[in-house]
Amino acid sequence: MTGKFIVIEGLEGAGKTTAHQAVVDTLKELGIEDVIFTREPGGTPLAEKLRELIKHENEEPVTDKAELLMLYAARIQLVENRIKPALQAGKWVVGDRHDLSSQAYQGGGRQMDKHLLQTLKQTVLGDFEPDFTLYLDIDPAVGLARARGRGELDRIERQNLDFFHRTRARYLELVEKNPKAMIINAEQSIEQVRRDIQSAVKNFVKFAR
Amino acid sequence: MTGKFIVIEGLEGAGKTTAHQAVVDTLKELGIEDVIFTREPGGTPLAEKLRELIKHENEEPVTDKAELLMLYAARIQLVENRIKPALQAGKWVVGDRHDLSSQAYQGGGRQMDKHLLQTLKQTVLGDFEPDFTLYLDIDPAVGLARARGRGELDRIERQNLDFFHRTRARYLELVEKNPKAMIINAEQSIEQVRRDIQSAVKNFVKFAR
Repeated sequence: MTGKFIVIEGLEGAGKTTAHQAVVDTLKELGIEDVIFTREPGGTPLAEKLRELIKHENEEPVTDKAELLMLYAARIQLVENRIKPALQAGKWVVGDRHDLSSQAYQGGGRQMDKHLLQTLKQTVLGDFEPDFTLYLDIDPAVGLARARGRGELDRIERQNLDFFHRTRARYLELVEKNPKAMIINAEQSIEQVRRDIQSAVKNFVKFAR
Repeated sequence: MTGKFIVIEGLEGAGKTTAHQAVVDTLKELGIEDVIFTREPGGTPLAEKLRELIKHENEEPVTDKAELLMLYAARIQLVENRIKPALQAGKWVVGDRHDLSSQAYQGGGRQMDKHLLQTLKQTVLGDFEPDFTLYLDIDPAVGLARARGRGELDRIERQNLDFFHRTRARYLELVEKNPKAMIINAEQSIEQVRRDIQSAVKNFVKFAR
């Protein structure tokens, strides 16, 4: 039996690391222990090098299209060289971000053309998509204050607040119409967020197996 | 008056460096001295870092799509940050490779889907294209023998001979139907190749100005 691909999405400071732990703990509780972790952009040697360029290029302005193309280059490496082989071997994969991030950040935040984004997604990924997505919803001001507390912000995190409001709006729009995604209110206490995730994952697993 | 973008294309060992010099010399002779040189992939700080990944990634297999996406990321950086500003400032640009290389190597050599390649080109570059392309045509066996004489081959140059035959066939197919491109027989003596380039460039400039 093939594994499942669960993705955690959300703005900076939404609590993706905590959420990831909650997902893994819940899977373990359900007897699913063969789980691998991925993060995007990154997760393979080449994809991690691309991540570095995407996040920290500072010798020249990065065009929106180049950023998007590097994200997809990193993504297809991860999908073909790690995610698909893991799923085929029966492992479950828990991802910190996947394609929805590009739709939200590049489409919403950077206001790139929707058609261009859809075309690229279809061209690069075809029908591959997560089995289940948890979107941690948070007010950008709250999330960024948390993220700032952790240290220096990278090239993308230095965008202004409007950028993140647009990103959040696109996240919500896309999650609401995606039957394989759900919204978690990430402004609640950590305990409550964990409980919500636990229950969402249990429900998903019940129907997935 | 805006400048013009002249591109030199061809297989490894076709003599692109010699051709570049011949183009620059001819332009100079015609009074066009404000000329910049670009090479692809590369030509900007970020694009050069991508070139390194494209040519020398050896920690994991590079998928065809990731390779193509990195090529386009490098290309759009070069086009937006160097080529277009130079042309607008009235400079002429002489490029060692441009989009035709992707169509020939990835489409012909790697046999990637033509529709995918066309979609990506259109999505990333829109209507931007060279004003004039010189394709240096050579038998792959002859070109590769020359290239090998120069030292170690990179990841792409290590493909088998069939790969380069397919690449050449696609080059010829595309150049033949492109009114802004012409074939130079690169198996002739260097002197004759230089003369052919000189006459092609003179003709182009006559109509371009």
